[in-house]
Amino acid sequence: MTTALLLVDHGSRRAEANANLEAVAALVRAEAPSLLVEIAHMELAPPSIEEAMSACVDRGAARIVVVPYFLGPGRHATHDIPALAQAAARKLGVEAEVAPPLGVHPLLARLVLHRAGVLDADATEV
Amino acid sequence: MTTALLLVDHGSRRAEANANLEAVAALVRAEAPSLLVEIAHMELAPPSIEEAMSACVDRGAARIVVVPYFLGPGRHATHDIPALAQAAARKLGVEAEVAPPLGVHPLLARLVLHRAGVLDADATEV
Repeated sequence: MTTALLLVDHGSRRAEANANLEAVAALVRAEAPSLLVEIAHMELAPPSIEEAMSACVDRGAARIVVVPYFLGPGRHATHDIPALAQAAARKLGVEAEVAPPLGVHPLLARLVLHRAGVLDADATEV
Repeated sequence: MTTALLLVDHGSRRAEANANLEAVAALVRAEAPSLLVEIAHMELAPPSIEEAMSACVDRGAARIVVVPYFLGPGRHATHDIPALAQAAARKLGVEAEVAPPLGVHPLLARLVLHRAGVLDADATEV
């Protein structure tokens, strides 16, 4: 069964903010070349969650894992996006699963140290 | 010269949202045990940027690297937090440098794949 990964952020009227998610999606494709990876914005900019899920189905996905691209478990990540994804899944006849948001993870700690440029001798290499 | 790392998020009236940054800071300390790591919230919850920078100075920091804990380069990360940090630095007589936000990085792509639970054979191990 072909699985797609759908990255969903809030969405913005600023093109630069929306482009950020596209850039992350490109890196996800680079890490997992055989995976179908699409993006959607919860609101304010296309593609919507339903539009992007429809595109995944058109490309052969029978199952879509939706990843809310948010740092914390706020209302958008834990309620709004899951509700939109499940409604679209019912309409499109596809299986959808909503993952947790980025949350708390050592990879984020390593990225913080990298951005700070203060990796010390004790730190894990980034 | 002792350097401190100050993680700054937006701040929230929800304790759970503020606790998220504390949890990330704990992971940063685990990755770099010799580094002084503090947190602040830009608004809505203590400690403020100035309060946290003052605590860093009290603990011996002569230089503070401020990392905006935001995914994208929006106004808070690129304007508001740098302005607050530089104002506090002048007041406290300490050197401050503001890092870029988390931005776009392969570590985020790896975390997305980890959260999705769809790491395939081609993906780098997380």
